[in-house]
Amino acid sequence: MEAPSSPPPKKSVALSGIAAGETAICTVGRNGDNLHYRGYPILELAQGCAFEEVGHLLIHGRLPDEAALSQYRQRLVEARGLPHEVLVTLEHIPAATHPMDALRSGVSTLGCVLPEKDEHGTAGARDIADRLLAALPSLLLYWYHFSHHGRRIDTATSDASIAGQFLHLLRGQPASPEHIRALDQSLILYAEHEFNASTFANRVVASTGADLYSCICAGIGALKGPKHGGANEVAMDVIARYDTADQAENDIVRRLGEHEVVIGFGHPVYTRVDPRSAVIKTIAQRLGQTGGNPRLFEIAERLESVMLREKGLFPNLDWYAAPAYHMLGIPTALFTPLFVIARTAGWAAHAIEQRGSGKIIRPTAVYTGPDERHVPAIEERSA
Amino acid sequence: MEAPSSPPPKKSVALSGIAAGETAICTVGRNGDNLHYRGYPILELAQGCAFEEVGHLLIHGRLPDEAALSQYRQRLVEARGLPHEVLVTLEHIPAATHPMDALRSGVSTLGCVLPEKDEHGTAGARDIADRLLAALPSLLLYWYHFSHHGRRIDTATSDASIAGQFLHLLRGQPASPEHIRALDQSLILYAEHEFNASTFANRVVASTGADLYSCICAGIGALKGPKHGGANEVAMDVIARYDTADQAENDIVRRLGEHEVVIGFGHPVYTRVDPRSAVIKTIAQRLGQTGGNPRLFEIAERLESVMLREKGLFPNLDWYAAPAYHMLGIPTALFTPLFVIARTAGWAAHAIEQRGSGKIIRPTAVYTGPDERHVPAIEERSA
Ligand SMILES: CC(C)(COP(=O)(O)OP(=O)(O)OC[C@H]1O[C@@H](n2cnc3c(N)ncnc32)[C@H](O)[C@@H]1OP(=O)(O)O)[C@@H](O)C(=O)NCCC(=O)NCCS
Ligand SMILES: CC(C)(COP(=O)(O)OP(=O)(O)OC[C@H]1O[C@@H](n2cnc3c(N)ncnc32)[C@H](O)[C@@H]1OP(=O)(O)O)[C@@H](O)C(=O)NCCC(=O)NCCS
Repeated sequence: MEAPSSPPPKKSVALSGIAAGETAICTVGRNGDNLHYRGYPILELAQGCAFEEVGHLLIHGRLPDEAALSQYRQRLVEARGLPHEVLVTLEHIPAATHPMDALRSGVSTLGCVLPEKDEHGTAGARDIADRLLAALPSLLLYWYHFSHHGRRIDTATSDASIAGQFLHLLRGQPASPEHIRALDQSLILYAEHEFNASTFANRVVASTGADLYSCICAGIGALKGPKHGGANEVAMDVIARYDTADQAENDIVRRLGEHEVVIGFGHPVYTRVDPRSAVIKTIAQRLGQTGGNPRLFEIAERLESVMLREKGLFPNLDWYAAPAYHMLGIPTALFTPLFVIARTAGWAAHAIEQRGSGKIIRPTAVYTGPDERHVPAIEERSA
Repeated sequence: MEAPSSPPPKKSVALSGIAAGETAICTVGRNGDNLHYRGYPILELAQGCAFEEVGHLLIHGRLPDEAALSQYRQRLVEARGLPHEVLVTLEHIPAATHPMDALRSGVSTLGCVLPEKDEHGTAGARDIADRLLAALPSLLLYWYHFSHHGRRIDTATSDASIAGQFLHLLRGQPASPEHIRALDQSLILYAEHEFNASTFANRVVASTGADLYSCICAGIGALKGPKHGGANEVAMDVIARYDTADQAENDIVRRLGEHEVVIGFGHPVYTRVDPRSAVIKTIAQRLGQTGGNPRLFEIAERLESVMLREKGLFPNLDWYAAPAYHMLGIPTALFTPLFVIARTAGWAAHAIEQRGSGKIIRPTAVYTGPDERHVPAIEERSA
């Protein structure tokens, strides 16, 4: 598969189109909209695999066979418990905290209690990546229930999948196979995306030789931003603003006239389509037809056609992820943390790959500041 | 001042010489070894200013006059206390933890308890930057004394400077003006360095619109790596390995013959000299002559001449920072955290500047992985 051809650089993206390194993990393909994880097309992975298979592919380099998959699932089930010190930290994080901040703090503290031993090998890093995949839903939902309802939940469920574990811990009871599969597929779509901003932040940290927890904390921080992972939460706010599709259309046309950016549309890399959008759209539509809120889907779909007509813009993955997650009963504030759970697989793979390259990432800058000037004595300065 | 001319890209540095954005904060000047903060030469700042003046310059954009400086010092003194929730977290971080991990966790938790309100403005971010400058020594040394000696220290000292506060909290008694000034000058040298790896990680996080704590946590993670801030700790291990300068010389010549990288030499940007090295060398020499350990300085100086003779390499800031900090009675594990305290001023300035640019940082990658392949049914996979 060749390197992507070069579409014109995006205006609002620094280093747009500039290669910051090599990767064997992911490519958007020759046309720039043909996403693959380690050579496998995203649509085949989303249709034919469970998220755990994709996690294994990213972190351990290959799709597992049946025996390896059941071993891997078992390992993940066993890593759902949290050390006492981490629970205490989570219990002291206020309810008003952004869940991404709570997650960043939980991961950081876990890195103090169960540190990476050999920061230069890869076995230790892979173990930690697996542990994090298993422990992230526990961290998030332990904090969530404790801070919001004063309840200490038992995080060691026996659900076979991470999607099942998440919905079980969130709801306090096991979810239906349909709901689990909907979430599971969304995690596959969110798992990896080449040198996106959070993965790149994570690689910059890895490039100095830092431990994996430090890399993942950087990824979480970057993902929080509304221009990146935070977009699925903002997209939900946009869609929830309206009662009808007509009202939504009129308001968005007006906002576009005022040059407002509509979060959930456009992309730092894709120029014509986000190849993940069709999959998540089908999921959202199905959830709307089977007990969810079909009006939400209608509004989202209407705005898709408005954005195409008015600006030639297409929805990105976050646009239909918002109504899908909402119809799964997930609070909006937990949308971006779900993105973290998925993307941790990709982050870990990239951190390990970056270390292997032996290079530190250190660009330069164009200086636009004042010319050389002398330091005035303090009595001679003006306020 | 023009943009730096382009020396040949460094072999072990990704994006070497490639501009990832604009900055008005820092330049290494036309020759690439002429460091300035906001137009002021680093040597004038190190000789003529206190670290608080430089922090004010970086975070608030200008050198303060006398009234502004004394107000600023007062503000920093008042922000030394830590919220109860943060103290509890610190008390649960084990003594064996790397202090950088403890610091990352402390900052992350502080970000939960006292979050940034308006993530898009700059006033909130500047306030948090000031708070962090004041609170970092408290975080670090509260954890350090509690985990190592079971002692809960009072972090609200009235020392006029951050260097004084640090040494006071570390030692349990106020330090001499000479020691305070030595540490203070080193903080000025460490405060800022354009698009180095940790600042760049922090800018990538800022570029998505994330809050300042998330940016600083990414910076701390990146700084931890032995190829970056962690170098001052490794340099100390190198120097402490030897009893005499002759023994050091023989051993390093042998190691160079085996192509070992000697941490503390060379630089991702500088090619002939690190302009900060002369200042920190003088500090280390003076400390050796006035009660410190002159042998340490001799060994460091001998290895400087060996590295020049054998490899044409020059010491970077971390090389002489190591013996200087050691002679100030600072445990080696706290060297990189001191770098954090200083660099937080630079990180904050860069995060605010990056937000202002409105751009997300999102490079691309050269794909080196497998060609397109189909997902095999799970029964058809080999382990
Ligand atoms: C990703 C993003 C920064 C790329 O923007 P960009 O670099 O300006 O992209 P382009 O150069 O292709 O933009 C072309 C035009 O469409 C506009 N545009 C791009 N995304 C837009 C959006 N979401 N809403 C409204 N207008 C948008 C641009 O402002 C530009 O308009 P102009 O030519 O009138 O100045 C931008 O699309 C965005 O911020 N999207 C929303 C954030 C989001 O959903 N992020 C999650 C991504 S997975
Ligand atoms: C910063 C660093 C990555 C730049 O290395 P680089 O990109 O290879 O730099 P150059 O291309 O100028 O290297 C020239 C040669 O010197 C060697 N070299 C560079 N730094 C060296 C060091 N510290 N010890 C021994 N050899 C070194 C390189 O391996 C190369 O050798 P070669 O030509 O025989 O292959 C490297 O100097 C380093 O790792 N230094 C130690 C880490 C450190 O102190 N970091 C703190 C920086 S503030």
